[in-house]
Amino acid sequence: MEKVVLDHGAGGGMSQELISGTIAAILGDAYIGEMEDSAVLEVSSTRIAMTTDSFVVDPVFFGNGDIGKIAVAGTVNDLAVSGAKPLYLTLAVVLEEGFALEDFRRILRSVRDAAKAAGVKIVAGDTKVVRRGEADGIFLNTTGIGVLERPLQLSSRALQTGDQVIVSGFLGDHSIHILSMREGLGFEERVQSDCAVLNHVIADVLDVAGDGVRCIRDITRGGLGTVVNEFADASSTAIELTESALPIRPETAMAADMLGVDVMYLANEGNLCLVVAPEYAEAALKALNAHPEGTHAAVVGSVVTGDPGSVRMVGPDGRSSTVELLYGAQLPRLC
Amino acid sequence: MEKVVLDHGAGGGMSQELISGTIAAILGDAYIGEMEDSAVLEVSSTRIAMTTDSFVVDPVFFGNGDIGKIAVAGTVNDLAVSGAKPLYLTLAVVLEEGFALEDFRRILRSVRDAAKAAGVKIVAGDTKVVRRGEADGIFLNTTGIGVLERPLQLSSRALQTGDQVIVSGFLGDHSIHILSMREGLGFEERVQSDCAVLNHVIADVLDVAGDGVRCIRDITRGGLGTVVNEFADASSTAIELTESALPIRPETAMAADMLGVDVMYLANEGNLCLVVAPEYAEAALKALNAHPEGTHAAVVGSVVTGDPGSVRMVGPDGRSSTVELLYGAQLPRLC
Repeated sequence: MEKVVLDHGAGGGMSQELISGTIAAILGDAYIGEMEDSAVLEVSSTRIAMTTDSFVVDPVFFGNGDIGKIAVAGTVNDLAVSGAKPLYLTLAVVLEEGFALEDFRRILRSVRDAAKAAGVKIVAGDTKVVRRGEADGIFLNTTGIGVLERPLQLSSRALQTGDQVIVSGFLGDHSIHILSMREGLGFEERVQSDCAVLNHVIADVLDVAGDGVRCIRDITRGGLGTVVNEFADASSTAIELTESALPIRPETAMAADMLGVDVMYLANEGNLCLVVAPEYAEAALKALNAHPEGTHAAVVGSVVTGDPGSVRMVGPDGRSSTVELLYGAQLPRLC
Repeated sequence: MEKVVLDHGAGGGMSQELISGTIAAILGDAYIGEMEDSAVLEVSSTRIAMTTDSFVVDPVFFGNGDIGKIAVAGTVNDLAVSGAKPLYLTLAVVLEEGFALEDFRRILRSVRDAAKAAGVKIVAGDTKVVRRGEADGIFLNTTGIGVLERPLQLSSRALQTGDQVIVSGFLGDHSIHILSMREGLGFEERVQSDCAVLNHVIADVLDVAGDGVRCIRDITRGGLGTVVNEFADASSTAIELTESALPIRPETAMAADMLGVDVMYLANEGNLCLVVAPEYAEAALKALNAHPEGTHAAVVGSVVTGDPGSVRMVGPDGRSSTVELLYGAQLPRLC
């Protein structure tokens, strides 16, 4: 089996072969990079969004995705939730000596497919190889830019009393899928990762509810619990969630119980939290429901008068409890 | 001693403390990121350059620099050699559990100082923590964008017969410094790394010689030998170098001999190869010489008629030999 060797990262002919023969060849027309130091790009607006993420998910391949798909979806989604149209991504790879080249090719095919699904191009890249034992297989970084063509100012500071809090899909599925694979719990067949590119969904929501959308956030590390706490904190408002309204798969709840983790703090990779003015909530929900990724979208709470920065959850018995900002979770490498 | 723990990367309160209390606090006004998913930026042109690099240098701290300085200089220089004015960088960090927090702070101070020297802002970041043994201390990724305000089309395809090949500084110093530290050769005091941000030098060269500059390349992995081969190949020209004209420190030559490596293929981190129309060569040299990083700049060869894609070097005895594109070099983690 062909494996990654140190010379793949040494900058000579073998590096060039890897770039042109493997990376550029597989990415195909999802790649518009040239062998220069920078890509030169035309954008349609001088107001742009920029974001970066490294990806270290373990295992690299999971039931319905891999690190390549997550790396594109994560950055595309971070751009899209800021109201931007994602355009260009860079792709930087750190490979451990001995990593199977066929696995690398498979990851590149996922990158290509996800980039095509999102309608973005990979414009520049970098490949480093470290010695055996100095990394764990493969780490990726994607950094993206997009253009802000809409006259929106989405911000977590924009929340107002009465706004509705919407979640676009089942909470925690990505984390449970990965943790189940890692711990051998047997849930990974029933709970798949939600990893998906969401820029088209978000564009549709903004088309019909743009004027009423205060803020959108990709629910990743830290889960919904962290997102709503950041929202409440940034806007000095109070948020109240309705426990029974939270979209959670029974299998996910069961697996979370077994693992001793709280679904409220689990990462998704294709799930949004939106805060929307009340008169736009129905339109936003309808736009979400029209996409497979938003079938289970639901209003889960609202912005209320109360202690600024606080988040409360009302249980089925009507009693409410505080949703704390979790300090840590000891759940590494979910993305 | 405070150490990085898994919860620093978990996305909860401890991650936020690391971001606001350590990263944002140290970067200071070199950082304009907010706690949103993307940075929203204004640029002065719709023609932009974008580039990415991951950094895995070993050791992380060396005589006159560290991974933080290299991470900023590398990406700033890649933007600048494309003719762009570097503006914004993202900074993504992969930390190994157990890495000393004080070392991380020291690296962030280097990032800040290099960003200030270059006049760029860090606009977005990401921090992942992997378990002990899954990475080697710290890996960085910087991705940058800049604006192309000059009406230039710098390209390695633009070379023409008669053009002069200029190198801006001593070849190989960065590699020899790092390898000497790694191998305990004792040269690291006498041969320091050349790591430096070069955007101001490049801007000065383009100011006086812009119309005659065909192409500039940062001499990094693969060294000058790889750069000139790529130039000759991309432009289907032949390049002839004069061995005696190459700026090489005697100590660097000596250390390279001891290590059994060829200076022609060693990486720099603050050294440029420029190809300039003959009538602009003097002006370009003068502009380089005016900067400390360009004191030893020299014309080292020219574009000649000959086999397209070939590079030859004329020795002191007048005999010429081929400068091959090296296939590999087995020198990992120099940057």
